[in-house]
Amino acid sequence: MSERTRIKRLPERGSKDRGLLDAILDEALICHIGFTREDGPVVLPTIHARVGDTIYLHGSVAAGNMRALKDGRPVCLTATLVDGIVAARALFNHSMNYRSAVVFGTARLVGDAAERTAAFRAITEHVLPGRWEEARHPNDAEDRQTMVLAVSIDEWSVKTRTGGPGDDEVDYAGDIWAGVIPLAMTAREPVPDELLRPGIDSPPSVRSYRP
Amino acid sequence: MSERTRIKRLPERGSKDRGLLDAILDEALICHIGFTREDGPVVLPTIHARVGDTIYLHGSVAAGNMRALKDGRPVCLTATLVDGIVAARALFNHSMNYRSAVVFGTARLVGDAAERTAAFRAITEHVLPGRWEEARHPNDAEDRQTMVLAVSIDEWSVKTRTGGPGDDEVDYAGDIWAGVIPLAMTAREPVPDELLRPGIDSPPSVRSYRP
Repeated sequence: MSERTRIKRLPERGSKDRGLLDAILDEALICHIGFTREDGPVVLPTIHARVGDTIYLHGSVAAGNMRALKDGRPVCLTATLVDGIVAARALFNHSMNYRSAVVFGTARLVGDAAERTAAFRAITEHVLPGRWEEARHPNDAEDRQTMVLAVSIDEWSVKTRTGGPGDDEVDYAGDIWAGVIPLAMTAREPVPDELLRPGIDSPPSVRSYRP
Repeated sequence: MSERTRIKRLPERGSKDRGLLDAILDEALICHIGFTREDGPVVLPTIHARVGDTIYLHGSVAAGNMRALKDGRPVCLTATLVDGIVAARALFNHSMNYRSAVVFGTARLVGDAAERTAAFRAITEHVLPGRWEEARHPNDAEDRQTMVLAVSIDEWSVKTRTGGPGDDEVDYAGDIWAGVIPLAMTAREPVPDELLRPGIDSPPSVRSYRP
């Protein structure tokens, strides 16, 4: 464990459970990637996918931030799931239930054709399981326009909060309500493309999608 | 506009609409804050609240990352709302609908009592509107344990994607389904604290909560 992965504040919320890290990364639809540019820190949302001990990212070869990352500079990838609002009797004890995964590393440019295809597949299946078999695969021109980056899961930390509010003894006797409002991402009815030809039903990936 | 706030990739997704920035910051329950430590970049989830041109953050005075920020080092605050999965005919044209707000600045330690109270109120009302009037306010000991930081909204950028998929001419004639799966955060039924005294109903803030 390195200094930066040691959970110092509320260590009971920290976890060294690698399975929990993987579960958070796999459930989170996006993550936020941070790195340091010449003009300071930057944090950007991005789609990711985990394959074993590797997190894959992709983007346009024309994107400045992708180009900035391929030189192997340090990155921090953070995926956060918000699970609920914790309303306590005291404002001080209000909190959120959440699960967050933080991975420190450096991005590696993926050039190998087989690994790139595996990454495309993983990213597709991460966002919409089953879609890889349904949609048209990248052609050579599309492939050339896409950069794939990989970050190894070596140095990481997990922090979570679950359960109800914790208040101070003096407040339990009062008449202030306390509890949790659970939150979750939900999917609404799919909206077909206006240009969809008649008679094409929504496919299994879309019909069975659950966030 | 500075170099880092200029949207170079897909500039049609960029916006200089300050109202849109504010709307994203206000709707997002959390943001991710990035900064550079001695050992590299770090990205952490945090609760925030906007008051005019200022974003307030809070945390424990014992938290190393809060202490690291109060020295005025550069930060990047990013709030992202995921609005949908865009399924195109070609995998290359798959995308997400989203709204993201990125603010660059430095954190200022807030010491003024009135500004601290305004920040506590804003953070409470950001997460759970109406809660400020319902719960017990911080006492002196709680106040001393809480650090408040402020980041001015000076340098910022907004990027969004909305609408259906955009495919290539050749793919429209095929029989692959395309469309959008809308996503939204939703609240489930509130769960009262196990230690709640009988006869205390959920208050307006909880009953009327909508993410």
